[in-house]
Amino acid sequence: MMSGLADKVVQGDVRSAARLMRGIEDGDPAAVGALDRLYPCTGRAYIVGITGAPGAGKSTLVDALVGAFRQVGKTVGVVAIDPTSPLSGGAILGDRVRMQQHCNDEGVFIRSLATRGWLGGLSRAAAGVVAVMDAMGKDVIMVETVGIGQQEVDVTRLAVTSLFVLTPDSGDSIQMMKAGILEVADIYVINKADHDGALRTRAELAAMLNHNPGAGCGLEPAIVLTEAVNGTGIAELADSIERHRDFLASHGGLAERLRARAMLELDAAVESALRERVAAALETQTRDQLLEALVQRRISPRRAAAAVMELITVARPD
Amino acid sequence: MMSGLADKVVQGDVRSAARLMRGIEDGDPAAVGALDRLYPCTGRAYIVGITGAPGAGKSTLVDALVGAFRQVGKTVGVVAIDPTSPLSGGAILGDRVRMQQHCNDEGVFIRSLATRGWLGGLSRAAAGVVAVMDAMGKDVIMVETVGIGQQEVDVTRLAVTSLFVLTPDSGDSIQMMKAGILEVADIYVINKADHDGALRTRAELAAMLNHNPGAGCGLEPAIVLTEAVNGTGIAELADSIERHRDFLASHGGLAERLRARAMLELDAAVESALRERVAAALETQTRDQLLEALVQRRISPRRAAAAVMELITVARPD
Repeated sequence: MMSGLADKVVQGDVRSAARLMRGIEDGDPAAVGALDRLYPCTGRAYIVGITGAPGAGKSTLVDALVGAFRQVGKTVGVVAIDPTSPLSGGAILGDRVRMQQHCNDEGVFIRSLATRGWLGGLSRAAAGVVAVMDAMGKDVIMVETVGIGQQEVDVTRLAVTSLFVLTPDSGDSIQMMKAGILEVADIYVINKADHDGALRTRAELAAMLNHNPGAGCGLEPAIVLTEAVNGTGIAELADSIERHRDFLASHGGLAERLRARAMLELDAAVESALRERVAAALETQTRDQLLEALVQRRISPRRAAAAVMELITVARPD
Repeated sequence: MMSGLADKVVQGDVRSAARLMRGIEDGDPAAVGALDRLYPCTGRAYIVGITGAPGAGKSTLVDALVGAFRQVGKTVGVVAIDPTSPLSGGAILGDRVRMQQHCNDEGVFIRSLATRGWLGGLSRAAAGVVAVMDAMGKDVIMVETVGIGQQEVDVTRLAVTSLFVLTPDSGDSIQMMKAGILEVADIYVINKADHDGALRTRAELAAMLNHNPGAGCGLEPAIVLTEAVNGTGIAELADSIERHRDFLASHGGLAERLRARAMLELDAAVESALRERVAAALETQTRDQLLEALVQRRISPRRAAAAVMELITVARPD
């Protein structure tokens, strides 16, 4: 049933794609299996990562980029990763109605993912949704995340070209970049460039990036000023992405990035398989007993882990 | 040899503790094993987590808190987790000479850890270093991290009381809190309270926290204004920590937090054991072949992971 879906996806059926993506996000084994059938039909799309703090205007920027790519005849997929609130337990922006101007355009497919659950879970779901869009034949796929933390950084390893979006007033972002916490991007976008301090932010950024000649694989990382709400700078940004792609293709950096992506996919899949194995082997009761023993210091974490490992290998399915 | 170290640590020998911590950070199996011997002697220390963006003044604040705890006769351990630069590869602040006024005080032990390697690696190393300080008999152990990302959030699950430090000018931090990305803390510290906007930040924070009645386990999260550089507000902050501890102890929230800590320790140890197993089973050559097959789309990530799982269970050591 789900493998029938896979065939329809390759034929470009939008409803089947949406159903398959939902299955992937829910961790439905049939959907995950259907991905196997799709996999040989993937690898053609160009993947762009967009990260940045909340409030930087990423969604508006992605929206504007969709328009720019559509104008030159490219089909576009968007995977928007929404932060999950630790308080509400739900995705903050998950059900938002976004990018309404593209909703009647068959060349555009938009999907939100919530960052619930464990690290590998998000990476696997995001990689799966990207693969579905890729198999659908989308030319460009944009993966949009909040650019903080290992989880989000990992997801952007799916991308070949990565953008970091900041605003003239993002003090913490600049601090984090200075401290080396934020990942190196290929293109820095100063959005809301009409706000005070845009030129100072550009100067700070340029000074910082020159201190790091290793960044951007030999190509100086570009800095582009935009006002996404009114489209200013969007054509230049699309152009920058194109130039970065050409640079990588002609200088051999592309293979390295594709390998990094494969490594992410393998790691996520292995972690996922291991977790399934642990969950299957470790009943609630056993887990509660181990935790109780740990709280009471009757067992060390290492010995508790050894007990879990024993269960996994004994519980090996034949 | 390393188990002889463990005995000396329990007797309070500082050089042995430092050696054991280095072994833990390097992942030396003998050191990890020595932790097993220490484990029954732990669980007495009170653990406080301190997070916040770079530049918020966390180190100065921790420094001032060390002084406050020492004044009431408590011994103190500090685990400072330094971000690793993706550019330089080294810890940014790792070799800094910090907290010089405490360096001749035998009641204070300070250790920096770099956030290198994988998620579970940091959690395990931090938990190990905390355990060593605990076994040494430290009354209070402060774990200081940059408060962004799952990695750091996980580490603070070691703490019973958690502080989040921000400044009157931290726009991104406030944005992230609004978006529900930053974890809920028990005590919010507005440091550099002499800067413009401190009262506005307090009002914004208070409004935000009232929207989340679930935060802080029934106790309203406290907001404390400090100027760590000159000690203003530090006594109130130490007092707040004490009150939060008393509240948890009298309202039964303590058990839940200790269980969360045990869960973190178990997860980190299981992940560590699994990674060792995967690394042992998966030779470089096999891994390279799998990655190449993935890049060429000859195999799906799920099937590649299944191959790895097969190796792990077959390679089971008896």
